[in-house]
Amino acid sequence: MTEYSGKNLKSFTADELIVLCERLREKIKSTVVKNGGHLSSNLGVIELTVALHYVFDFPTDKLIFDVGHQCYAHKLLSGREDGFETLRRRGGLSGFPKREESAFDCYNTGHAGTSVSAALGFAKARDIKGENFNVIAVIGDGSFNNGLVYEAFNSLRPLNTNVLVILNDNGMSISPTVGSMHEYLEQLSQNAQHIAKVEKHSNIFERFGFSYDGVHDGNDLFSMIAKLSEIKEKLKTQSVILHVLTKKGKGYSFCEENPQITHGISGGEKKQAVSYSEAFGKTLVEIAWKDKAITAVTAAMTPSLGLTEFFERYPERSIDVGICEEHATILCAALAAQGLKPYYAVYSTFLQRSFDEIILDICSQNLPVTLCIDRAGISGEDGETHQGVFDLSFLNLIPNLTVAVPKDIEEFKRMLVASASFNAPLAIRYPKDCARIFGGTQGGELSNWQYISRGNCNVAVLACGERALSLADDVNGEIAEQGLNVTIVNARIVKPLDEKFLQGLAETVIITLEDNQLLGGFGSCVCTHFADNSDVRVKCFAYCDKFIPHGTAEELMKEYGLDGKKLKEYILNNAVR
Amino acid sequence: MTEYSGKNLKSFTADELIVLCERLREKIKSTVVKNGGHLSSNLGVIELTVALHYVFDFPTDKLIFDVGHQCYAHKLLSGREDGFETLRRRGGLSGFPKREESAFDCYNTGHAGTSVSAALGFAKARDIKGENFNVIAVIGDGSFNNGLVYEAFNSLRPLNTNVLVILNDNGMSISPTVGSMHEYLEQLSQNAQHIAKVEKHSNIFERFGFSYDGVHDGNDLFSMIAKLSEIKEKLKTQSVILHVLTKKGKGYSFCEENPQITHGISGGEKKQAVSYSEAFGKTLVEIAWKDKAITAVTAAMTPSLGLTEFFERYPERSIDVGICEEHATILCAALAAQGLKPYYAVYSTFLQRSFDEIILDICSQNLPVTLCIDRAGISGEDGETHQGVFDLSFLNLIPNLTVAVPKDIEEFKRMLVASASFNAPLAIRYPKDCARIFGGTQGGELSNWQYISRGNCNVAVLACGERALSLADDVNGEIAEQGLNVTIVNARIVKPLDEKFLQGLAETVIITLEDNQLLGGFGSCVCTHFADNSDVRVKCFAYCDKFIPHGTAEELMKEYGLDGKKLKEYILNNAVR
Repeated sequence: MTEYSGKNLKSFTADELIVLCERLREKIKSTVVKNGGHLSSNLGVIELTVALHYVFDFPTDKLIFDVGHQCYAHKLLSGREDGFETLRRRGGLSGFPKREESAFDCYNTGHAGTSVSAALGFAKARDIKGENFNVIAVIGDGSFNNGLVYEAFNSLRPLNTNVLVILNDNGMSISPTVGSMHEYLEQLSQNAQHIAKVEKHSNIFERFGFSYDGVHDGNDLFSMIAKLSEIKEKLKTQSVILHVLTKKGKGYSFCEENPQITHGISGGEKKQAVSYSEAFGKTLVEIAWKDKAITAVTAAMTPSLGLTEFFERYPERSIDVGICEEHATILCAALAAQGLKPYYAVYSTFLQRSFDEIILDICSQNLPVTLCIDRAGISGEDGETHQGVFDLSFLNLIPNLTVAVPKDIEEFKRMLVASASFNAPLAIRYPKDCARIFGGTQGGELSNWQYISRGNCNVAVLACGERALSLADDVNGEIAEQGLNVTIVNARIVKPLDEKFLQGLAETVIITLEDNQLLGGFGSCVCTHFADNSDVRVKCFAYCDKFIPHGTAEELMKEYGLDGKKLKEYILNNAVR
Repeated sequence: MTEYSGKNLKSFTADELIVLCERLREKIKSTVVKNGGHLSSNLGVIELTVALHYVFDFPTDKLIFDVGHQCYAHKLLSGREDGFETLRRRGGLSGFPKREESAFDCYNTGHAGTSVSAALGFAKARDIKGENFNVIAVIGDGSFNNGLVYEAFNSLRPLNTNVLVILNDNGMSISPTVGSMHEYLEQLSQNAQHIAKVEKHSNIFERFGFSYDGVHDGNDLFSMIAKLSEIKEKLKTQSVILHVLTKKGKGYSFCEENPQITHGISGGEKKQAVSYSEAFGKTLVEIAWKDKAITAVTAAMTPSLGLTEFFERYPERSIDVGICEEHATILCAALAAQGLKPYYAVYSTFLQRSFDEIILDICSQNLPVTLCIDRAGISGEDGETHQGVFDLSFLNLIPNLTVAVPKDIEEFKRMLVASASFNAPLAIRYPKDCARIFGGTQGGELSNWQYISRGNCNVAVLACGERALSLADDVNGEIAEQGLNVTIVNARIVKPLDEKFLQGLAETVIITLEDNQLLGGFGSCVCTHFADNSDVRVKCFAYCDKFIPHGTAEELMKEYGLDGKKLKEYILNNAVR
């Protein structure tokens, strides 16, 4: 425990508290610039977090950060200043709340809108067990768009329990917040500036059983302390929404002026190659020029997905619904049912939210929606909640869907061009960064596999996506020193399997490589295909059945199942010329 | 087309319209009593549906029914009276809206809360394409609890389009509607009775950009016609919510008095064996008597899941959150994090809604929540949107989760008892009906497989769940006439596989049987396990990669992949004594 954690903090003088805020701000700034991470969102809540720690008693009281983009000050205040320089590094502190890291993190988050539900669960359990503590959810206005928040609000009265929800309103998620709820929040803020108290009857939150208290300056440390002390008393008898305005990037002028590009930043001095996201946006702009049915849909991630130019060029065909992944998916299905050609771009991990809607709304109706799945495979430093390692498995099981995985960024662009005339549900998954371009002929991008190279032994490697193909190619280079080569196949369509290609393979030892979980993924489908055939053996390289924490993609791939050394070993042990 | 469909209807006299309503009511009643289906919900909306067809021009105008529990009158009014007696039967009319059945069904539904999103999609596509028609969503107050509706409302302004949302308020989903939104709707209704106009500032819907019009009697045909005609004009310039009160079961006194048990009914004269749902509820009541941490959570399905007694006996540990599957899942995770032992009971098909929350909130935090998955496998007459054939596949891929499938109802009860001390995420999946009890010793229900019988050849059948085991046992009986027996294994834990058991198997031809999709399911895991072993062949019997329509479970199992005849054939062709 550092000197300013927990109980010590409560004896701090006003001056000491101010110094502490500056210290936290400096520490976060210097660490994030080096390690990467969520900068602006964390800088905005320093005063609020210090006030919370000053007034409440953690970990007895429970503090739940929605998404977790704003938990750094909390980590520093709860005995994690030592070691904070390991933030987001393999084996170091996570950038998100983690129960396994500290008792002060009572609930893990990473996706939007879960905090109010979780807070209600803690409070209800407290009541059932006859315990006594406070439960607080801190949630941004971006997450407030998510339907989960409404579901939780709706059950406040039936659950008959008390929680504090702090609405941290900075007008942004990653993109600026959209939607009527956001407009309503703005209206509340404007009202508060003009009249002493928001008109009682106009408040949505009170309809749900909350006492509403707002709007206050969340960056004013002492008024936050006073306000939270007052609310702490209220919580004994009621649930409260505290609506505070904070400045994203507070105290760092570059961040304050550029909150969108500094929401999350990369650490160090990585060179920026063209990313798949950029290629996606650029290609979509090109094909949409001719094809007026092409429409782009996103859930609050326009710039990160490469869609900024599309939104500028074709505003009438650009839809950002806020952090509402389910709604976005259904909207796409209906747009397609009425003859448009929607592209829903989304990070792999957030696509999980739309699982039911992909099945029923898109695929069971066989509608031509294209899912453009960014950050697929291991995504690295954000850890468990952001790895995109499940998508091939959960998409594989859905009838009517075609699932494509480009071998490189050039093939990705050709797939997008081909997708415009693909008249059925389609998913294309790709990682963030592009590193290599491979050979192979053009054509058939959405219909069949292709040979990348032919080997001189009984082993064929079916590689799925750029990272897998890179690994195969590297290992093939290494074994070439021994005069050995394996056949390498660009298995770019995971569903349906290219069965004709599989039947034509002369090799009898088949190795599958994929940047995805083993269970239910590409390899498992190949195993199932050959299960009843005793002439062929299949060996799968994919991620093991574990949640994959934070670290660099390279470290994690090797550690969790995509290890070049083991691949080489397996080939050498099984190759027969 | 029948004489009262489409354009003809508009020339009907008032008397003829009244006669028509009675005729529809009789037709629905007589058909549903015979075929089973949704009775009360359909009887409640006859006048509303006739009024809609009288005022609007379908299929040019688009009508979307939320869930679809209330589309029968619409089917009868759109050329499907002939053939209506095939409702819910294999090859006959679906009980839900189906695009492939009629142009009058523009969007398929089955799960709650999708209609407003879909309506916005149709309206937005219309605007983008410069077309001209009206879009109408009809949604019940039960679905109104779902977060999707809020997400759709929130994007009404950004989408800048016009739709009509008819809130069909009957105070019920399957269970009575719960939550603050429901209380708010009741308040609106009461206000309307007392004052001429609902106080302007108190209306939530107007905050989202709707013009609100309510409350009206949805069973009053002529006032509905007048009101809809008026709104049709309004829709040219704005979006409207029309709030109507309807009587669930209207016109059939038994239904009016018993809306909960007549929401959906079974047809014919099926005998009622004890169902898995009943066994679930009874066992949970028993174990909760000793274990005060056991808490039951449901999303508006208390009676159908067998939880009525539990809710009566332990109200303080009983939670119904309304149709909010995602929220229910997070609530369970948080209850478990605070030391309770929550059981989330849900139909397999609705569990799909919580996919992301099962992964992140429950499993990545390794919290001891038990998912009790009812109506797993083919569920029959409700068709595509209600088959529970994906759960083994989408649960298989989630780390930290144990997935159990009881071989019969007695083992199911023992699994539930064992689950009370199981300190990790657990899923137990089971069908509705119990038909058979099998041998096998007691113990190890949540840890290992067991032999049901030993064969005299090289074939072992790994059967997963009651239906699969019945099939295996039946076929084993048939081949016994030829002096042949296969080994039958109760593969009751699908994840993790009982690898020790698999390694100990002497047989070299392994057959897997499961009431689930092939891809990613139990069989595919067994294939992956043996893929690198050329001494063993695996053959999977599971459902093929298609959406499975309505029909009886028996018909569908056979047709889509669990066919005893083919199983027998495979065994006879591959058995070596």
